[in-house]
Amino acid sequence: MQEKSKDIKGITISKEKDFSEWYSELIQKAELADLRYNIKGFICYLPWSVISIKLMYKRYEEVLEKKGHLPLIMPSLIPESNFLLEAEHVKGFAPDVFWVTETGDGQKLPERLALRPTSETALYKMYSYWVRSYNDLPFKRYLSCQVWRAENTKATRPFLRAREFHWIEAHNVFATLADAEAQVKEDMETSYELCQEEFAIPIMFFQRPEWDKFPGAVHTYAADALMDSGKVIQLPSTHLLGQNFSKPFNVTFTDKDGKQKFGYLTCYGPAISRIYGAMAAILGDDKGLVLPFELAPYQVVIVPILFKDSTDKVLKQCSAIEKELSVKYRVFFDKREVSAGEKFHEWELKGVPLRIEIGPKDLEKEQAIVVNRQTGKKSAVKLSAISKHVDSVSKEYTKSLKQKKMAGFKGYTVDCDNIEEVREAVDNKKMARAGFCSIDLDGAECAAEIEKSLGASVRGKLVDEEKHKFKKCCVCGKPAGETVYIAKSY
Amino acid sequence: MQEKSKDIKGITISKEKDFSEWYSELIQKAELADLRYNIKGFICYLPWSVISIKLMYKRYEEVLEKKGHLPLIMPSLIPESNFLLEAEHVKGFAPDVFWVTETGDGQKLPERLALRPTSETALYKMYSYWVRSYNDLPFKRYLSCQVWRAENTKATRPFLRAREFHWIEAHNVFATLADAEAQVKEDMETSYELCQEEFAIPIMFFQRPEWDKFPGAVHTYAADALMDSGKVIQLPSTHLLGQNFSKPFNVTFTDKDGKQKFGYLTCYGPAISRIYGAMAAILGDDKGLVLPFELAPYQVVIVPILFKDSTDKVLKQCSAIEKELSVKYRVFFDKREVSAGEKFHEWELKGVPLRIEIGPKDLEKEQAIVVNRQTGKKSAVKLSAISKHVDSVSKEYTKSLKQKKMAGFKGYTVDCDNIEEVREAVDNKKMARAGFCSIDLDGAECAAEIEKSLGASVRGKLVDEEKHKFKKCCVCGKPAGETVYIAKSY
Repeated sequence: MQEKSKDIKGITISKEKDFSEWYSELIQKAELADLRYNIKGFICYLPWSVISIKLMYKRYEEVLEKKGHLPLIMPSLIPESNFLLEAEHVKGFAPDVFWVTETGDGQKLPERLALRPTSETALYKMYSYWVRSYNDLPFKRYLSCQVWRAENTKATRPFLRAREFHWIEAHNVFATLADAEAQVKEDMETSYELCQEEFAIPIMFFQRPEWDKFPGAVHTYAADALMDSGKVIQLPSTHLLGQNFSKPFNVTFTDKDGKQKFGYLTCYGPAISRIYGAMAAILGDDKGLVLPFELAPYQVVIVPILFKDSTDKVLKQCSAIEKELSVKYRVFFDKREVSAGEKFHEWELKGVPLRIEIGPKDLEKEQAIVVNRQTGKKSAVKLSAISKHVDSVSKEYTKSLKQKKMAGFKGYTVDCDNIEEVREAVDNKKMARAGFCSIDLDGAECAAEIEKSLGASVRGKLVDEEKHKFKKCCVCGKPAGETVYIAKSY
Repeated sequence: MQEKSKDIKGITISKEKDFSEWYSELIQKAELADLRYNIKGFICYLPWSVISIKLMYKRYEEVLEKKGHLPLIMPSLIPESNFLLEAEHVKGFAPDVFWVTETGDGQKLPERLALRPTSETALYKMYSYWVRSYNDLPFKRYLSCQVWRAENTKATRPFLRAREFHWIEAHNVFATLADAEAQVKEDMETSYELCQEEFAIPIMFFQRPEWDKFPGAVHTYAADALMDSGKVIQLPSTHLLGQNFSKPFNVTFTDKDGKQKFGYLTCYGPAISRIYGAMAAILGDDKGLVLPFELAPYQVVIVPILFKDSTDKVLKQCSAIEKELSVKYRVFFDKREVSAGEKFHEWELKGVPLRIEIGPKDLEKEQAIVVNRQTGKKSAVKLSAISKHVDSVSKEYTKSLKQKKMAGFKGYTVDCDNIEEVREAVDNKKMARAGFCSIDLDGAECAAEIEKSLGASVRGKLVDEEKHKFKKCCVCGKPAGETVYIAKSY
């Protein structure tokens, strides 16, 4: 499962010293993506990332379906006229749209077609047909698809910010505002359940300030994960759209009282390819990728240690173990003609959770050496107990990965009383927690000041609201209306 | 899982009498797709089709991976300059390309970007980086993705011919022509294994005539399925590309002898959304959809027959059966407040393989009525034996569906000695088998004559070649070089 076996060398840059360079090396050397495709910001995802991404999609789809969402497949193109119906939305997305304007040999289309940057304006036109009565509600659907955003002014970064990315969007209609608000809560729970528990990425959910909402939303709630660079990255966000889209798109239903009413909408957008990038970045170390056990393309590799006389015996034992473990796990028995050292190196780079080494000396002792990628720990395990050992590691691996990262995450927040303290915090790769005048539009000026002088942004107020402890806004000094978090971001 | 419960009425048109209208009603009334999206030829796939389509993708991906293909995710956009590298290919596809020419507020792109109509010209540019040495071969990759083709001159038809469709493309590189030819055979086997055995669609594989090859291919081998309309539809095709693409795209490898050589390429394109449409069209009947057991969104529905006094008892028994069967099957216990008759009707329309009815009289006899969608047969089954009964039906359901259709398929071929006999056959909704001068380019004129005077096309020669029994070409009367099949097509 390698694109070019001979070029593999280890990562040469320390994650702590230069996160950005380390990440670039990781992408290339663990063979996660190839950036040489000849359109700027469009990349090729290689098998080693695609296999995990597909597993992440599968889990997300299972959980969404369990929570009552049904799948749809929608056109990728959106007529410009749909797109124009919601004013805030078009203002937010229009600058980044890729437009299809012609077919074949320059035959102009009657109307420009947008490559969907997000699907609200494709879907809600149809929702106006599909939603009829209170019996149809809640109406919960999702798409697994890709979206395109030109974002000409922003630097792209593989997985984290690309011009085409792969996500899920769930779009729901409810009879009441309270139902819609409950959905937003459910979406946040889903994010914790998957991103944090299963993918081992510690996240915090913020209510975004008014000036940083999804275009057209009433409120936006977004998860931020903190990278080792000290910058945060936005992971899934969920949006309370209220009736902002149901009105222009005429998404109405006949209620129990016989009256026509506008539905309350929500949408939720976990960007799987971006979550993958964040996961690789956050969990990886100076040896390369580290992956949750359940998402690793190979969960176990078996490396034979070969000497002339014992080759057959060793290979036979490896085969037996491969057969035994393959019933439950994705196992690769690495028989390639390269040195055992090179193999160790490569599978560490690619983040395979467990490596089993068997040589003639091990055979004598009826054991194998099992190496844990996460801890680096080597265990001599009796051959008869290998399966049990893998079972036991597999149960704990992702949990302990998560706990380690959660512990680190907590120390990253620094309380700040004024802008100088905020500056010090973000320059030291921390997240600042501070008083802020307001996250309504009247706080925008203070946020702009932070952006301008610190290159950082106000992420919003924590959803699981803490007690206010700050008296003043860290910028203008007016009474603090909120406690906010401030960080540099991708 | 219904988009608008109140509008459902049965299909009003006989499949035999008017296949085309029957198909349109099926799509609408079984809620497979909505055609009201406001771009011509772009449709919304509804949950009832999407769930099956996802299961079909899953099976296809499993089988391809088992046969050594690894997944990739590639950009959807292809620079015009890539696209121009293979002359035949560009000639074949350029008229149907949707072009992205600008972003945002009319900012022109430096180069037009094609929405991929197929991915050869995106991939092979990268293959030239990825394939280096004989050690990398065979190099087998696949994409699960969508493609776009404007096809302005052709009528669209939901699932069967759309301007955006969802498929898999597998693209492989080999060291020798023989290896590439073996891959083409494997692709045909995969098609039989999935389309015919699992999806119950009888297919025949043809080597397409030279004038009907994939643009840029050495040979094209395509499966045709015969619809009840008498028209055939092309299902998966596999293409021997030889070195036609490896040369312009520079896909080379260092062979064992140290020499640089051009790889031999193949590609295979099962169009899942189209296969779904063909399956729905071929298996369906005048009551609606019929589905292979494994692909049905619900495999079993349970409908309680309720009378005042026994409601609780009946519901309780239904719940118990739901619980028992849900361990192995996708089960829906239909508790909705509509009449049992309406429910029967709806689930027949949607092709649920088994319906279990339980009423008070059944309870007295400790039985349930189990109705088989395919045969219409009703069986009284002891409650204690329900699970066994479902197990036994589930094992045979798809097989018997396939056998029934295969039997019908065979009678559809008619031997013809001259063009008048061919005309009679195709007008009678049959496939004509006839002698033909040549499927090389020198036969193109006779094929054009058939196209012009009969509205039918030469599908090519059967891959599992039969003995030649025809002496003369059915058009020009010259000695028959081949036995070909002629049919009207979608």
